[in-house]
Amino acid sequence: MIVAMWESATDDQIQEVTNHLVKMGFAVHRTTGARQSVLAAVGKRIDFDIRELEVLPGVQGVHRISAPYKLVGREFRHEGTIVRLPNGVEIGGKQVVVMAGPCSVESREQLFAAAEIVGRAGAKVLRGGAFKPRSSPYTFQGLGLDALKLLREAGDCYGLMVISEVMEISQIELMLPYIDIFQVGARNMQNFNLLRELGKVRKPVLMKRGIAATIEEMLLSAEYIMSGGNYQVILCERGIRTFETYTRNTLDISAIPVVHKLSHLPITSDPSHGTGLRDKVAPMACASVAAGADALLIEVHPSPDEALSDGAQSLFPEQFAELMDQLRMIAPAVGRTI
Amino acid sequence: MIVAMWESATDDQIQEVTNHLVKMGFAVHRTTGARQSVLAAVGKRIDFDIRELEVLPGVQGVHRISAPYKLVGREFRHEGTIVRLPNGVEIGGKQVVVMAGPCSVESREQLFAAAEIVGRAGAKVLRGGAFKPRSSPYTFQGLGLDALKLLREAGDCYGLMVISEVMEISQIELMLPYIDIFQVGARNMQNFNLLRELGKVRKPVLMKRGIAATIEEMLLSAEYIMSGGNYQVILCERGIRTFETYTRNTLDISAIPVVHKLSHLPITSDPSHGTGLRDKVAPMACASVAAGADALLIEVHPSPDEALSDGAQSLFPEQFAELMDQLRMIAPAVGRTI
Amino acid sequence: MIVAMWESATDDQIQEVTNHLVKMGFAVHRTTGARQSVLAAVGKRIDFDIRELEVLPGVQGVHRISAPYKLVGREFRHEGTIVRLPNGVEIGGKQVVVMAGPCSVESREQLFAAAEIVGRAGAKVLRGGAFKPRSSPYTFQGLGLDALKLLREAGDCYGLMVISEVMEISQIELMLPYIDIFQVGARNMQNFNLLRELGKVRKPVLMKRGIAATIEEMLLSAEYIMSGGNYQVILCERGIRTFETYTRNTLDISAIPVVHKLSHLPITSDPSHGTGLRDKVAPMACASVAAGADALLIEVHPSPDEALSDGAQSLFPEQFAELMDQLRMIAPAVGRTI
Amino acid sequence: MIVAMWESATDDQIQEVTNHLVKMGFAVHRTTGARQSVLAAVGKRIDFDIRELEVLPGVQGVHRISAPYKLVGREFRHEGTIVRLPNGVEIGGKQVVVMAGPCSVESREQLFAAAEIVGRAGAKVLRGGAFKPRSSPYTFQGLGLDALKLLREAGDCYGLMVISEVMEISQIELMLPYIDIFQVGARNMQNFNLLRELGKVRKPVLMKRGIAATIEEMLLSAEYIMSGGNYQVILCERGIRTFETYTRNTLDISAIPVVHKLSHLPITSDPSHGTGLRDKVAPMACASVAAGADALLIEVHPSPDEALSDGAQSLFPEQFAELMDQLRMIAPAVGRTI
Repeated sequence: MIVAMWESATDDQIQEVTNHLVKMGFAVHRTTGARQSVLAAVGKRIDFDIRELEVLPGVQGVHRISAPYKLVGREFRHEGTIVRLPNGVEIGGKQVVVMAGPCSVESREQLFAAAEIVGRAGAKVLRGGAFKPRSSPYTFQGLGLDALKLLREAGDCYGLMVISEVMEISQIELMLPYIDIFQVGARNMQNFNLLRELGKVRKPVLMKRGIAATIEEMLLSAEYIMSGGNYQVILCERGIRTFETYTRNTLDISAIPVVHKLSHLPITSDPSHGTGLRDKVAPMACASVAAGADALLIEVHPSPDEALSDGAQSLFPEQFAELMDQLRMIAPAVGRTI
Repeated sequence: MIVAMWESATDDQIQEVTNHLVKMGFAVHRTTGARQSVLAAVGKRIDFDIRELEVLPGVQGVHRISAPYKLVGREFRHEGTIVRLPNGVEIGGKQVVVMAGPCSVESREQLFAAAEIVGRAGAKVLRGGAFKPRSSPYTFQGLGLDALKLLREAGDCYGLMVISEVMEISQIELMLPYIDIFQVGARNMQNFNLLRELGKVRKPVLMKRGIAATIEEMLLSAEYIMSGGNYQVILCERGIRTFETYTRNTLDISAIPVVHKLSHLPITSDPSHGTGLRDKVAPMACASVAAGADALLIEVHPSPDEALSDGAQSLFPEQFAELMDQLRMIAPAVGRTI
Repeated sequence: MIVAMWESATDDQIQEVTNHLVKMGFAVHRTTGARQSVLAAVGKRIDFDIRELEVLPGVQGVHRISAPYKLVGREFRHEGTIVRLPNGVEIGGKQVVVMAGPCSVESREQLFAAAEIVGRAGAKVLRGGAFKPRSSPYTFQGLGLDALKLLREAGDCYGLMVISEVMEISQIELMLPYIDIFQVGARNMQNFNLLRELGKVRKPVLMKRGIAATIEEMLLSAEYIMSGGNYQVILCERGIRTFETYTRNTLDISAIPVVHKLSHLPITSDPSHGTGLRDKVAPMACASVAAGADALLIEVHPSPDEALSDGAQSLFPEQFAELMDQLRMIAPAVGRTI
Repeated sequence: MIVAMWESATDDQIQEVTNHLVKMGFAVHRTTGARQSVLAAVGKRIDFDIRELEVLPGVQGVHRISAPYKLVGREFRHEGTIVRLPNGVEIGGKQVVVMAGPCSVESREQLFAAAEIVGRAGAKVLRGGAFKPRSSPYTFQGLGLDALKLLREAGDCYGLMVISEVMEISQIELMLPYIDIFQVGARNMQNFNLLRELGKVRKPVLMKRGIAATIEEMLLSAEYIMSGGNYQVILCERGIRTFETYTRNTLDISAIPVVHKLSHLPITSDPSHGTGLRDKVAPMACASVAAGADALLIEVHPSPDEALSDGAQSLFPEQFAELMDQLRMIAPAVGRTI
């Protein structure tokens, strides 16, 4: 950490800041320049509130030097993390893994139809929501445990791994026997109680970026899971909130190469939630793979017009099959396969 | 709801949209203009996904006419809601209610000192965090139940009501005997499971705006609580995320008059979290009252330099007393008292 | 336009709004529903300030039905516009056109080297800035007329068309003999005086999206040029300002399919300014083509380390050649060539 | 400037960065910590592109230490700048100066009526637009020179100073004889050619913050004017673009205390453009004064319903008079008068 003092800072003020840094556990080096003094604080601690220093008299600015995370950083692990699923599929490897399925599990018929469609087209993981707390208390709230059982059955039937969203600590135990990947939604990216519990689990966690979260904050949340001992973390870009209103969110595709530079963790793109509009899903899925995404998360429904949730952003079966064909052409351009 | 069709829309497309609207429970009126047809859908339903219509062929745009909420709207209740606390203090009445205290309850000594300071200066409600899940698993996580007991004791001792944040459903029962107002943090504004349970409680809920939430989304979350039967909801502006980085968030003071126009619910301003910087708290507290805020939520610590959390945005005791004096001069300009 | 009245609106209020609409030149149809009255205003006028109605008593909300633009819309022209350059290259056709070159024209040597590099790799248009007003009055301000002459010479020498930025009305005449495409920078997207003059010119205009402009506002600015008689307008996405700070801007790739839906005009992507970081340019260029961009605008410098401006986001010659090879593999997946 | 190297950076990489810094004119101090090396670059230069260093191999991050501006900073001038107008009114002094009038000068009758209204209520400066390039080429474009003459006459008649917006370099000479303050609109905040010319003028310049400009960028633009020799610069907050759509922009009131901390220049608030809605103007004007604004810029029209532009955000005469009464009550709370 670097603390720059104002040109007008007194020696007493510089001393007070130095004392504060020492109390925080840092060794301090002082450089006195023509215009101002600069304090370099060196140490191993990464969790501190820089504002504690910013409010001290005489301080012009405080700059973090080391990243506020450690385990998720490229410095900690140079080669990319590969998350291996039980059936051998690898997320973060040469193959771009497509995870697809309906927003919500609605019925056995619907889910098995979806699983067959996505599996046949080349998806490796089946997605489907079991718990659906919604903004209106009157709308469909998900099938819960029944959905989990159906996901497992459908996954096994069609040779697909299974991913579903966990929303509360109490659901972890319930889900463990049925799913292969825990999904953490954008709204829970900073639900630290939930992240802490997922740090104790020994199954992969796919964690979505919050709609107002910086890339650094996403990495910090991943660090939280990893610090609990679970190193199988997959990141996911799913759109951020901006002033543009035509799309529901703005899918920040540049987050893909940025994450690859800063971290060894694989990163997924979710063009369905990222745009909220069916006819934007395919172009943004193609763009994500072209930008280097390790995986995709896509909503597909056997008949989107009858979907109980998110039908408007779900692909029709034939659209998904066409998209997979496009992706197969794009992947080799970036050294990948589908 | 209004559905505008493209000039090029066919009669079949218009019919299909009409059928869809009827299936959703609306009566449909068609207006055919020089350039295009427009369908007006009339009905009582307020919970629907307009994107279902947006993706239909021939549709140019879909416009909500009625607000997506009902109970929180000014149309539902013209006079402003007044939330009455057990000791007679009213939030939403003529008096601007100041709630103040430390970020976290750290010890009996700290909390009682804080309570005395804020009470003497004119605050009516004592704030203090009991549960503090933090981004780092190594930092202070709050005193939990002990904090709640201390809050009650300190509140009773100094004649203050007590507010504290609830983060999980399991904490509601625990908190009920000790606190007067449940606070819902910005990160939980769309935790619908939690909101549903708070709808069943018979104590006031102060709900903060999420950092990426529109005013309308804040009102929808309040609707969620009210639809459960709890009408004692207090809103709170606490800063939104923008491109400006000097302040931690941008306190959207215009949300105060906007909420007063759209809703009958009282609205609080939290300049401590809204700016994240101690020397910006007083100006923004003054601005909030001048803009019509019904209440303020302010972090005050007996000795901010030693605070275990958020010290940088906590006021010193004498700063808080001075601020209260300023507020007493401003309030009459907008027809209020402190 | 639709005006929704509050349930509590009086007949007098409804009449006043109706009169106002008639005065604005609209025919008015009134629908009275169970909860409220709705006025549908039908007419040809597209330029009005809806806030004039929003502030009238009894008005709940005002909704535009027709787009606020006409000439740029897909309804006006169903097939995509193809901008034909003097040498036969077409922007908006099957081929994705790559425009590349240095940020600024610095010298004959530098520009000719750049032109050879980008031409050999497959670019069809040479870019280079002539006027460089900069935030510091002490830094390089561009070579002006000399730069324009060099651009023409280098373009002719290597068979490339030439694009350069126009910043003031007075530069139009100066530039006309030398360039093939006028570029309007993001900061001038709403410089309506400049746009009006470019509407009178008979050369293509590539207009960049402002960093805080919605897609609709970009289309409105294009409408301004077209309404002057110049239909050869090319749009350009170059990044919007969001809360994310790692990248200089957030390149909104979803703007590409959105523009293709709303408008017949071709759209370019500028990954150099969109990210501001050299190592993000190639992934975002690939993503743009995969999402359907009609053209790319890329900064390439013979030796970026010595560039007088924007060196950090300029590609090295060999990077550009590699990128072109990648793009050649991606384009066929979306039915295009490079 | 501080350059933090990765832990894995080689000595050669560190040497290369050092050489680059020396070439840029800095003296370099190296600190080697447990985890990484840090280079402190000390010098007087403030205009450089930190990305030049960010892209060098081995660099983890680059941090500016000194502000990128000098003349506008509090370090350069500790006491606040007071801009004295010809009639003795001071902006930046104890009195909060209210500037008011119509959006556009529409006629002698309208302007004189407005001047009488705002002057009688206590405004010291008359505002009015002369040049109105609008998004539609068919709407009112302003009276130009006639408007300037009317402003001068009306100002002299009612004892008011005069402010009007300059949009192009060519207008400066034209305006000089008639106006007391040049206003630079939000869209021109980074029109460096215009700013450079205004730096040569010897009249005050009120410069508005761009809707996507950070506070630091606003200060940099003010620096541009000052570096030309014109030190009479007044800043103006007028709303930034955020995801919230209810208000036209989000008036960032926290910019007022932030500017007061960073700079000695006075800062104005424009609640009319900041909200775009008449009924939000008064609360936000009150909030601005409570937060410490040195001046206000408010749109007032003798009959807003008939205004040719921005009628929806213009106050009625009686609303303005009431607001002035409110402001007179608030100002003393922050040590000011109106």
